[in-house]
Amino acid sequence: MPKPSPLTLKLSAFVALSDADLATLAGLDRRRRQFRAGHEMLHEGQTNASAFILARGWSCAFKLQPNGDRQIVNVQIPGDFLGLHSILFRTSDHSVEAVTPIEASELLASDILEAFSRAPRLASAVLWAASRDEAMVVEHLVNIGRRTAEQRMAHFLLELGARLKLVGIGDSTGFDCPLTQYHLADALGLSAVHVNRVLRQLREADLVRFQHGRVVFGDFGRMAALAGFDMAYLDQDHPLLR
Amino acid sequence: MPKPSPLTLKLSAFVALSDADLATLAGLDRRRRQFRAGHEMLHEGQTNASAFILARGWSCAFKLQPNGDRQIVNVQIPGDFLGLHSILFRTSDHSVEAVTPIEASELLASDILEAFSRAPRLASAVLWAASRDEAMVVEHLVNIGRRTAEQRMAHFLLELGARLKLVGIGDSTGFDCPLTQYHLADALGLSAVHVNRVLRQLREADLVRFQHGRVVFGDFGRMAALAGFDMAYLDQDHPLLR
Repeated sequence: MPKPSPLTLKLSAFVALSDADLATLAGLDRRRRQFRAGHEMLHEGQTNASAFILARGWSCAFKLQPNGDRQIVNVQIPGDFLGLHSILFRTSDHSVEAVTPIEASELLASDILEAFSRAPRLASAVLWAASRDEAMVVEHLVNIGRRTAEQRMAHFLLELGARLKLVGIGDSTGFDCPLTQYHLADALGLSAVHVNRVLRQLREADLVRFQHGRVVFGDFGRMAALAGFDMAYLDQDHPLLR
Repeated sequence: MPKPSPLTLKLSAFVALSDADLATLAGLDRRRRQFRAGHEMLHEGQTNASAFILARGWSCAFKLQPNGDRQIVNVQIPGDFLGLHSILFRTSDHSVEAVTPIEASELLASDILEAFSRAPRLASAVLWAASRDEAMVVEHLVNIGRRTAEQRMAHFLLELGARLKLVGIGDSTGFDCPLTQYHLADALGLSAVHVNRVLRQLREADLVRFQHGRVVFGDFGRMAALAGFDMAYLDQDHPLLR
């Protein structure tokens, strides 16, 4: 039996998919394409764009402000949808850029409609995944609205750790992370200099180290307490990072 | 023929619903309940909660921070789902409070699954609505992360105007708004005093007036330019406020 895809692993946290559901899901995951790091997969305002299921690599979703500032709304890891909005909406409401080289399956609106007709439970699972995406953006809003720079960073790294573990990447000790200080700055509403200072503070407090492209958790409990990280919003009932 | 419900009006902006879709949708909208202003419809962390379709009145979704700060994530108006997450997730990831007396139809997870089996196009419409909710939270994130206090307020009021118009409440001139300065403060990451100052500035610039429970738009174009308001993310192709 082939290894389950990251999307299958993720949706299985919501619902036990039947063989028919799994076959429909596999059908969505067949038009594989490859993109280089830095490629703009979707452009804000674009019409008739495709969506993708990310199979390998990382991307980030962002909005550009009129003054050129970039607000990263979320990052996508394997098993995530890219630009689901762009096939449901008339125009894409944000841009998506490949952070690393990526492999992704292209989706058209008709693919989604056909899959929903065949497998209504899969429809509810996709609605769950979309709701989980929203719950993450809500947390990022709380991050920027109500948390200190240290808490934001801790929360963001804990969230990534939990998400990656669910799809079989990374473990309790940490994860490989291709994000630069500029990605972190644009995601957390900080300057790159501030990002470096915060990472140093977290490292000196033995909470987490982010060096040489790897995030290594120190004291998980203390870090979660600092960040006010309650992973219920990720709705993945696993014993996380333990 | 009865007047279409706010939810029907909203979903019709995404897809032309068939008679069968409409009948299924009406079936979701039958367990009507009434709640007083201030009632907590959903509590963060609650398990086995119901969801609701809001038929009349306003509510707000929020998260409380450990220090007691409240971040309002969004407000709901007629036609919106309340707590769709709470029937898809094991626990509700946020709280919802009635801002005014409200009338709402209770939804169980089984209602959603059954409706999706009968009407897959309705499933895609609900996914569209959930994606639109996420797009709004994304804009609120950009509001707090990258916009000035004046821009935030202008953007928030323009968004509300557009949403209300879609469901047949309010028009190009403005809308009745039950939100207090405290709601606006908690939604925009400002203090109540700051909210008053910003509203005064917008009024003095003849952009918008918010007085006696009514928002009255002045110069819509200039206000949209100030806020960087591009309503594509609401995906409602109407000629808005014109």
